[in-house]
Amino acid sequence: MLLDLIIIGGGPAGITAGIYAARKKLNTLLISKEFGGQMAKKAVAIENYPGFEKISGLELIQKFEKQLRKQKIDIERDAVVKVEKIDDKFFVATASKIQFESRAVIVTSGADPRPLEVEGEKEFIGKGVSYCTTCDGPIFANKIVAVVGGGNSGFEAALFLSKIASKIYILEYGPKAMADETNQKMVQIAKNIEVITSADIKKIQGDKFVNSIIYRQGSIGENKTLKVQGIFVEIGHQPATSFIKDLVDFNEKDEIKIDWQTCQTKTPGLFASGDVTEVKTKQIVVAAGEGAKASIAAYKYLNDKH
Amino acid sequence: MLLDLIIIGGGPAGITAGIYAARKKLNTLLISKEFGGQMAKKAVAIENYPGFEKISGLELIQKFEKQLRKQKIDIERDAVVKVEKIDDKFFVATASKIQFESRAVIVTSGADPRPLEVEGEKEFIGKGVSYCTTCDGPIFANKIVAVVGGGNSGFEAALFLSKIASKIYILEYGPKAMADETNQKMVQIAKNIEVITSADIKKIQGDKFVNSIIYRQGSIGENKTLKVQGIFVEIGHQPATSFIKDLVDFNEKDEIKIDWQTCQTKTPGLFASGDVTEVKTKQIVVAAGEGAKASIAAYKYLNDKH
Repeated sequence: MLLDLIIIGGGPAGITAGIYAARKKLNTLLISKEFGGQMAKKAVAIENYPGFEKISGLELIQKFEKQLRKQKIDIERDAVVKVEKIDDKFFVATASKIQFESRAVIVTSGADPRPLEVEGEKEFIGKGVSYCTTCDGPIFANKIVAVVGGGNSGFEAALFLSKIASKIYILEYGPKAMADETNQKMVQIAKNIEVITSADIKKIQGDKFVNSIIYRQGSIGENKTLKVQGIFVEIGHQPATSFIKDLVDFNEKDEIKIDWQTCQTKTPGLFASGDVTEVKTKQIVVAAGEGAKASIAAYKYLNDKH
Repeated sequence: MLLDLIIIGGGPAGITAGIYAARKKLNTLLISKEFGGQMAKKAVAIENYPGFEKISGLELIQKFEKQLRKQKIDIERDAVVKVEKIDDKFFVATASKIQFESRAVIVTSGADPRPLEVEGEKEFIGKGVSYCTTCDGPIFANKIVAVVGGGNSGFEAALFLSKIASKIYILEYGPKAMADETNQKMVQIAKNIEVITSADIKKIQGDKFVNSIIYRQGSIGENKTLKVQGIFVEIGHQPATSFIKDLVDFNEKDEIKIDWQTCQTKTPGLFASGDVTEVKTKQIVVAAGEGAKASIAAYKYLNDKH
């Protein structure tokens, strides 16, 4: 069956696109391995999504998902492995070897955590090295941990961990942590968080489990060792675009380039929105807004093709 | 006192910008005559703002406002009459003749209903001619009314009125109503709504109160008269920008031109977001997302100036 629209991804952009598409009566399929993306794994409560003074990422995404499921829309829990376009038709293949066909596609696959790429990192994934504080934080009760990254995600991860772990080091590569002042203040107030700047991570060590992290202090400093039992890597994300290489253009961060008004990529009928795109402001409400833009533009594209 | 930021407008864009600015600890003032803009006056329930399956515009804006007021931010209930920039300082004057000064400004003043500009329209404002169905609809119980405009706003206004008035005509200038299929279907189901296309409105007539509307059917047709006691004009909006003429560029719809990533206008430190700008998708969630973009960009602008 030829669908009107396939939406790839189940974060705020994809869900919003789905709600809008279904209300426009587009015959739509949303494909996503999971709902929420980064949002469901967010360490601290969300206080900047308009409409909710304070809500956990998980709760908010559940509300989004419930609203989506009230619409007439098909949902497939699967990973997309390839998107192709032949003539005016898109072919979307999934990990379960199913192929779907549609006249338009919106990519909202988000971004995956960026790895540190230092010695020992891969070896100790799941043995002390983690990219998801919400998921793995609770197992570090009364332990000493390091959070790598002094942006908002790093500070928020540390604040979440401050109620679980006994001591948290925030290691920031630059000379100054870039987190919001709200987060900086909250970290100052927390008694068990220490911020170390100009820390260039060199190696992760351990036995069966992580036991230390080695960093160089400053550009000409010497190597220092911190004894830690857990390491949370919070140094940003890389866009999840492995399935779409040829049909879109990328910027220097490997983010998909889009027309800002319609979210269309260089391929007619192929749209993208949210954190997978070059949109600089990576926020839930922005991703949701971009999803609405893409969905309305896809509707117009499909109508014009009639 | 020199403020960091003045936000002009209290709709979804302005409130979101305010929440983000306050969380960034910017010394911020939000100036708006009222909260909610078009949203507070929306005729039907909102079902496409992610997080709420169904909520009235008024309820949603009250949640937004409550969340804003929880932040450390000053709010001034006033209309802005002029914005000027001298050197690096903005001067914002209000109708109450107060002048505020700031280092950055975000304009989120939205858009006002566009008038028909036909004979009799101005004369009968408040005497049968209305631009706000939610406000004025209830006084037309068991009356015959016309809604001018066959887009979503027109259809939504008619659907709201169908539970109040005895009969509703939707008059659309074009050969086809452009409303969503969801709205089209609901109008078909409603028993007391009739859609008339290719209707070119010529005149509004009445005595003390509106009693008829005259339109030409088609480009070469003859004038027809509909006996109606109320006329709701739903033909779009014009951006509210009278206070800002020189500092920004406009597109052909008189919307403020912006840099799409930062929402900055041609004047450094002056940002704009939401329905007042050239952003094509006029939706609550989009306006909110654009407000977040502008606020984060204003924060960066202010930091870079330090």
